[in-house]
Amino acid sequence: MSATADLHSLDYATPLDPLTLRHIGLIAGEGRFPILLAQAARDRGISVTAVGINGITSPELADYVDTMRWVEFGQFNRLIQICHEHNIRQAIMAGRVKHRSIFQISKMDGRGMKLLARSVSRKADDLLGAVTREFAIENIEMLDSTLLLRQCMPPSGLLTPNCPPTQEILDDIEFGKPLANAIAGHDIGQTIVVKQGAVIAVEAMEGTNQTILRAGEIAGEGCVVVKVAKPRQDRRFDVPVLGLTTVKKLIQARGRAIAFPGSQALFFEVEEAVALAESRGITLLAW
Amino acid sequence: MSATADLHSLDYATPLDPLTLRHIGLIAGEGRFPILLAQAARDRGISVTAVGINGITSPELADYVDTMRWVEFGQFNRLIQICHEHNIRQAIMAGRVKHRSIFQISKMDGRGMKLLARSVSRKADDLLGAVTREFAIENIEMLDSTLLLRQCMPPSGLLTPNCPPTQEILDDIEFGKPLANAIAGHDIGQTIVVKQGAVIAVEAMEGTNQTILRAGEIAGEGCVVVKVAKPRQDRRFDVPVLGLTTVKKLIQARGRAIAFPGSQALFFEVEEAVALAESRGITLLAW
Repeated sequence: MSATADLHSLDYATPLDPLTLRHIGLIAGEGRFPILLAQAARDRGISVTAVGINGITSPELADYVDTMRWVEFGQFNRLIQICHEHNIRQAIMAGRVKHRSIFQISKMDGRGMKLLARSVSRKADDLLGAVTREFAIENIEMLDSTLLLRQCMPPSGLLTPNCPPTQEILDDIEFGKPLANAIAGHDIGQTIVVKQGAVIAVEAMEGTNQTILRAGEIAGEGCVVVKVAKPRQDRRFDVPVLGLTTVKKLIQARGRAIAFPGSQALFFEVEEAVALAESRGITLLAW
Repeated sequence: MSATADLHSLDYATPLDPLTLRHIGLIAGEGRFPILLAQAARDRGISVTAVGINGITSPELADYVDTMRWVEFGQFNRLIQICHEHNIRQAIMAGRVKHRSIFQISKMDGRGMKLLARSVSRKADDLLGAVTREFAIENIEMLDSTLLLRQCMPPSGLLTPNCPPTQEILDDIEFGKPLANAIAGHDIGQTIVVKQGAVIAVEAMEGTNQTILRAGEIAGEGCVVVKVAKPRQDRRFDVPVLGLTTVKKLIQARGRAIAFPGSQALFFEVEEAVALAESRGITLLAW
């Protein structure tokens, strides 16, 4: 199998049954994703060795895992050593590492630098694909990051029954979808914000929250956020993540709806997010 | 000829010789573009009736034209009336009208509202195509906005001989070009900013200058700006414009290069821009 085919493969050679997992490594970025994943693993009796990145990963994660270790961003050799020390054969990457971190390489080790240098580009897929291949060389298998969190992937449908979409919102979603797919297909970003048939903002490296806030500043109230997975999303990394924070940012931007592909995105803290959205007249729609 | 074919046509039925022009209407947006166009017309003995938009067009324009009239944004019927009063049969649109203006419709007249409503979307091509068709209905022909400014379209090549591109800059331009073309092909924006094989920022409605500044904030020094025309650029509107201001923004963002397609973009105040760029070690390259 070529590197490219491997990188974009959705079907793993041995479809994994979470029940057979006993011990995983958790390569943790920022936010709630690693914490929720650690909780889900604990609920299933899977022991977790987490490796956090100083300044990025929440220290709170330590409370939810069996073993917590820390590295600096880019200390890739140390990361691999830790995995070997703890006999990790299967690992999951969870939580965003701000993409801009790749320009802050002061603490990178030699292997981290080589990894960066070997990437065809610094697009997310290339970088994370290179990380995944390095783990594979060390006989550490990177698993689908949504494996233990399927309950966080909403099926298609309206999440906010008390706030159904207006025709205008539906039109904006239909307008935005192919454009968001194009942006994601080029691995530029996952999010665009539209309003009344105009593209207000496109996400690149600034992230979803900043993109939403910018759109509100440019176009005022009524923006619609369309967030998508890549056309051939590799679930081992960079799965679209939404949650309570996304709704809060949309409120700050005076927006009216968030739409995303059902069963292809993780939606965290969904109950709080839905309650908050409905209290502000915001539509959350999985298509 | 269908409306769509007309909208995207690069070849006009009767290729226009500037020498036959005696009198034009100038529908003026912001910045230097309308002023430079008025100067170019005056140099050729073409009389100019300009219509400016309050709060958008520079009042200085009045010094360069034979007749200056003013409308509020969206007073389309009034705009047409002025053109008829001054017996305008051929007009040129020049200068950006901030795209976000379409959300500030308080002073729009009925015809302006109808025009907005009839656009398929509020993408630039749709909107400006609708404007052009409205003028055509009134027997006012919209001309190629670069017609009198061909001397402002740099041929392919290096504009800054004292600052040739490094291999890294060339790599970033090659990385960015197809992505910028994809963005422009969807009529989302004309500009992307890249650094070392990563897309830092994509332009949508915020405009080129804001996109450049954002990239600098996200990725620090060394960004490369790639600005493109649409795959089938209609030269009657929305031609890519660069100039001294673009270079100043790149300096503010600590960037290192601007690349664009030669003979497809207008570059204003090129001598000052080149001098400033070379003094700061910035590469300006037309491919």
